[in-house]
Amino acid sequence: MDIVIVGAGNLATSLAHALYNAGHAIKAVFSRTIDHATELANKVHAIPYDDISRLPADADLYIVAVKDDVISQVAKELRICSPNAFIVHTAGTVSVEVLPKGRRGVFYPMQTFSKQRIVEFSHIPLFLEAEHTDDEQLLDIMASSISDQIFHIKGEKRKVLHLAAVFCCNFANHCAAIADNILSENGIPFSVMVPLIDETVAKLHQCTPLQAQTGPAVRNDLNVIRQHIEQLKNNGHKDFADIYDILSKSVINLHQSTEKR
Amino acid sequence: MDIVIVGAGNLATSLAHALYNAGHAIKAVFSRTIDHATELANKVHAIPYDDISRLPADADLYIVAVKDDVISQVAKELRICSPNAFIVHTAGTVSVEVLPKGRRGVFYPMQTFSKQRIVEFSHIPLFLEAEHTDDEQLLDIMASSISDQIFHIKGEKRKVLHLAAVFCCNFANHCAAIADNILSENGIPFSVMVPLIDETVAKLHQCTPLQAQTGPAVRNDLNVIRQHIEQLKNNGHKDFADIYDILSKSVINLHQSTEKR
Repeated sequence: MDIVIVGAGNLATSLAHALYNAGHAIKAVFSRTIDHATELANKVHAIPYDDISRLPADADLYIVAVKDDVISQVAKELRICSPNAFIVHTAGTVSVEVLPKGRRGVFYPMQTFSKQRIVEFSHIPLFLEAEHTDDEQLLDIMASSISDQIFHIKGEKRKVLHLAAVFCCNFANHCAAIADNILSENGIPFSVMVPLIDETVAKLHQCTPLQAQTGPAVRNDLNVIRQHIEQLKNNGHKDFADIYDILSKSVINLHQSTEKR
Repeated sequence: MDIVIVGAGNLATSLAHALYNAGHAIKAVFSRTIDHATELANKVHAIPYDDISRLPADADLYIVAVKDDVISQVAKELRICSPNAFIVHTAGTVSVEVLPKGRRGVFYPMQTFSKQRIVEFSHIPLFLEAEHTDDEQLLDIMASSISDQIFHIKGEKRKVLHLAAVFCCNFANHCAAIADNILSENGIPFSVMVPLIDETVAKLHQCTPLQAQTGPAVRNDLNVIRQHIEQLKNNGHKDFADIYDILSKSVINLHQSTEKR
């Protein structure tokens, strides 16, 4: 398949590598910053562009992997040059209708992408949507060439997935960031936490998060909870204390409401 | 070493297995519920007890792995029968001074223990404390026989570790529980989240949580944040919306304060 990648950020980088390795031709990589386009294009034998109007008009698929709030503008420019292009975006919370009318769809890989790490796509869940059946099939063929986890879903469900992903990934990671902050103030390296984090996640391969829950809140150990909140406040972390409080209450509530059922 | 395990819960179970497999003799397992004591004792060739006063008085080490709020009482009973016993507890937030005077210490394994999973101890960080040098050495020998991550620290630092562990493990897991809750309402299996969670954690082996952060909050994407909070509220999850709000603000604050430095 001949593919144009619009964007050169974290997701664009990993996706371009996966598609290239699966044997697709990355015809072009676009970025407003030519250095970024060139850096990625060089790695996947593509041509870099910083002028969207000069992109090849005959690719099978245009993947718009840019920030949510510029998807619409970029896609509009793309549509003007390539009226018949099949354009997909990669965002969880953005409707397919943000793209200009015509052949349009969504290719949402549920994963966390950082530029310094090329992510393996083979087991990443890919959530696909397209307005026309032919396009949905084309998207399916492309997606199946890089992953064995393909799902066809509509916009509303994709929003639910993205929301859940923010909790599982972004907020869970932020909990680790808070821990790192507290530890480093006490001269303790974050690395001591890694075996604990690994086991926390290993459990989620075997049981539900509700079954896996441990700690003071699920034990309803109000004494430890109170001590921890005091400890945070005494060290100038009123903000972390509030988070500790609200999350502990939520753990207790969720377990009580589940027990009642 | 001859060891007595006081308690038969999640931690006691994994620890007894690790010590037994390392060649120590588990002389006894105590639980107020004889069935629990017997279940664990049978697995590690120990004798089960439900009467603390009948425990063997001549073991090298008594490990009190019970709930925080009963440590003091159980240890007191133990001291009466074995005045010279070396007694350690396993709690992060509890001071060594909760144990009765005499040979006393702390053996805090930083890990999440569930009864259904026997946890490998070999790389679990073990944080040790004892009042007497001889006892600290004895504890070190025991700990080194089951793990290669041994640290000697005092009570205040252990409290910091435990607090950090609550964020890294308990609260991160609760974020997954919230995601599971939202997904199941929409008929989506939690298993679709597992590759994302795996990658979230894999990144923490390579970089700091601050560097690993992705998502709407760190991008300061207020539009998505607003949409997600509305989505939660509209589905009757005011509590999750509040958590989303406070965590997003915290992500933004932490990144802004770090950039300023």
